[in-house]
Amino acid sequence: MSHVAKKRKLDKSRQDRLYFDSYTDVTIHEEMIADHVRTNTYRMAILRNSDLLRDKVVLDVGAGTGVLSMFCVQAGARKVYAVEACSIAEQAVNIIRQNSMEERIEVIRGTVETVDLPEQADVIVSEWMGYALLHESMLNSVLYARDKWLKPGGLILPNKAELYISPISDPVVEDRLHFWYTVKDQYGVDMSAMSGFARKCIMNSDITVNPVTVEDVLSHPARFAELDLNLVTVDDLKSVKGKFTCNSFGSAAVNAFCVHFTVTFPCPEKPLVLSTSPFKPETHWKQAVLYLDAPVEVVQDTVVSGEVNMYPSEESARHICIHLDYTIGEQKRQSKTFSIPDWSSEAQ
Amino acid sequence: MSHVAKKRKLDKSRQDRLYFDSYTDVTIHEEMIADHVRTNTYRMAILRNSDLLRDKVVLDVGAGTGVLSMFCVQAGARKVYAVEACSIAEQAVNIIRQNSMEERIEVIRGTVETVDLPEQADVIVSEWMGYALLHESMLNSVLYARDKWLKPGGLILPNKAELYISPISDPVVEDRLHFWYTVKDQYGVDMSAMSGFARKCIMNSDITVNPVTVEDVLSHPARFAELDLNLVTVDDLKSVKGKFTCNSFGSAAVNAFCVHFTVTFPCPEKPLVLSTSPFKPETHWKQAVLYLDAPVEVVQDTVVSGEVNMYPSEESARHICIHLDYTIGEQKRQSKTFSIPDWSSEAQ
Repeated sequence: MSHVAKKRKLDKSRQDRLYFDSYTDVTIHEEMIADHVRTNTYRMAILRNSDLLRDKVVLDVGAGTGVLSMFCVQAGARKVYAVEACSIAEQAVNIIRQNSMEERIEVIRGTVETVDLPEQADVIVSEWMGYALLHESMLNSVLYARDKWLKPGGLILPNKAELYISPISDPVVEDRLHFWYTVKDQYGVDMSAMSGFARKCIMNSDITVNPVTVEDVLSHPARFAELDLNLVTVDDLKSVKGKFTCNSFGSAAVNAFCVHFTVTFPCPEKPLVLSTSPFKPETHWKQAVLYLDAPVEVVQDTVVSGEVNMYPSEESARHICIHLDYTIGEQKRQSKTFSIPDWSSEAQ
Repeated sequence: MSHVAKKRKLDKSRQDRLYFDSYTDVTIHEEMIADHVRTNTYRMAILRNSDLLRDKVVLDVGAGTGVLSMFCVQAGARKVYAVEACSIAEQAVNIIRQNSMEERIEVIRGTVETVDLPEQADVIVSEWMGYALLHESMLNSVLYARDKWLKPGGLILPNKAELYISPISDPVVEDRLHFWYTVKDQYGVDMSAMSGFARKCIMNSDITVNPVTVEDVLSHPARFAELDLNLVTVDDLKSVKGKFTCNSFGSAAVNAFCVHFTVTFPCPEKPLVLSTSPFKPETHWKQAVLYLDAPVEVVQDTVVSGEVNMYPSEESARHICIHLDYTIGEQKRQSKTFSIPDWSSEAQ
C-alpha cells in the first residue's frame, strides 16, 4: 500500500517551490531543533566565537526559525540578517520579537540569490547540510552569499566539511531476505522463491537514510573528500570525488557502504566538530547507506578500496547522486550509482 | 528536509500506473505476509470453508504473491484464477510453481475489469482493504468481479465489512506542542511562539495512519457503517456514511478520532472476524487518526456523537476523504474534512 513516487524532470521553479514549501511544516524544524548534537554544536561554536562576532554584522543563510541568528545575538553580534525563502520566516519574526531581538535581527524573506542586504557581512552562519552532506545542495546558496555579501577575510561558520565512507554489514537486510524462508513454517506455503526478488528490491540503487549501528561498521571510516568553504566554488560541487582505502576489522559479509560527514567550526582554542559518524551520538542526518547488489565476505585486514563521486542528479539539481567504484579484497573492481528517491524524506 | 508531496489531479491512467507500480516493491508484500493477524485469519477462514471450496472454482482478486490462492488449493479448490494487474504476478507464478500448484492455480496478469476468465467462479477471495478500509478502494474491483464472474449465490471471502469510530486522546501531540516550551531551558532562546504554528501543522486535515494505544481510546468504538459484500454496489461506495454515539470512559482531553474496520468471513461454526481495532493485536493497517483543531475536555459519560461520511477524493478516486460532523458534550456541532496525503504510504 505504498505509492512509488516517480522521479520526474522538474522545471527549476517547481523544484524550488517544492524545496521551499518543504520547510513550512513544523516537523522538520522540530526535528532540527531537537537534534541536540546539531543545535548545541552550532550554539557552542557561535558563543565561543563571541570575540569575532561582537559588534559585527552576520548573515544567516536559510535562517528557518531564526535560532542561529539568536545565538549570534547572544554572542554579541550588532546586526544579523536572517535570510529565509519560505514561509517559516513568519514564525522567525514572531520568535525573534518574543526574545526582544527585533532590533538586532532583520528577517529578510527571499532567496539569498535575490535579496538585497543594506551592508556587507563580517560573518556568515548557515546550517546548510543535507543527507549525505550534499543532498538538497543548499551549499550553493552559501557560496553565492559568500562571494556576494561576505567581506574579504570574513568568517564562515562552519568553514570546513569532510566526507567519509566505510564498509558495513547490515543484518536487517539479511533478516528481511531470510523472512521468505520462514513463511512455510508459519502458513504451510513455500515462498522462498521471493528472496531473489527481495534482494533486487532491497539492494537497490536508492541512497537509504538510516541510523547505522556501530557494531555493523567494518572499518575505520575513510575520508574521501574535504571542502574548504572559504575556497570551494559552485563549479567544484558539480563533482565532489575522492579515493578511499579501508582495512576490515574482522570477518564479516560486506553488504553496503555507509557515507557520513563532519563539519568543522574554527574556535579560539581548538576547532569544534559536528560529526554524523556512526561512532558518534545519532543526529537527524543519520547516515547514508549504499547497498551492494550482493554481499562480499571479508576477513581481518581485507582491503576495501575505491573512489566515490557525488554529483547533482539530472532530474533535480537538489537531488544528490553517488557513484561508487570499489574493490573488495581480491574481487574485481565493481561500480554502482545511487540516488536519493523523491520520497526519501517522507520515508525517514 | 522533507519535501511536501503536492496533491495534484492525476489522469486515470497515471493513477492506475502509480497504483499498480506500488505493489511491485517487495516491502509491501513482506509487510502483508508478515502481518500474522491478516494472513492467518485469511488462512483459517479459507481452510474452515473447505467444504464449500472443495472441487470448486475460485477467483482471487488482486492476488499479489498468490498466497491466498495457495490457501484455497490447500482447502481443496479445483481451480483458482489469480488475477493480478502488476508485475508481482511474475513472482506469484514462480512461487506457485515452487509449491507444485501450477495445475490448480492460473495466474492471469491484468485488471479484473479487463481480463477474461474461462469460466464463472463459485467463490471470490480477495484482500482488498486499504487504510481506513476504503483508501485505494480496491473494493470496486471486487464488486465488479462479483457482478461479472461470481455464480448466483456464490461465496465471497470476506463477505462483510464494518467501520468504527472512537474519540481518543493522543499524548504524542501534546508532547510535541510542549516541546517548544522546553527549548529555552536547553538553548536559552524562547521558542514557545512556535506552539501555535505547530498545532496548526500537527492538527491538520491529513488522515494519519498510526497505531493507537489502547490507553488513549476514550470510549467503546461505535459502528457507523456496514457493507454487505453480496449486496453493496459501486454506487454505494461513492458515499459510505453513518451516525455514531460514544460515551466517554472518563476525564480526558479529546484531540482526535480513531477510525478502524473489521471484515468478517462466514464459517461453518461461527464467523471469523479480522479486526483492526486498537483493542486487538496490531495489524499493518494500524488505525486512521483524525486530529481535531483543538482538544476538548470530557468527563465520564460525556456524550460524543456525530456523523461520518467517507468518499473518494476528487484528485484521485483511489484516495479516500473522511468528512466528520461531531458534537462533544455541550459543545456546538463542528465539522472537519480529512484526506490521506499522497505520501502517507511512504511515511508509514
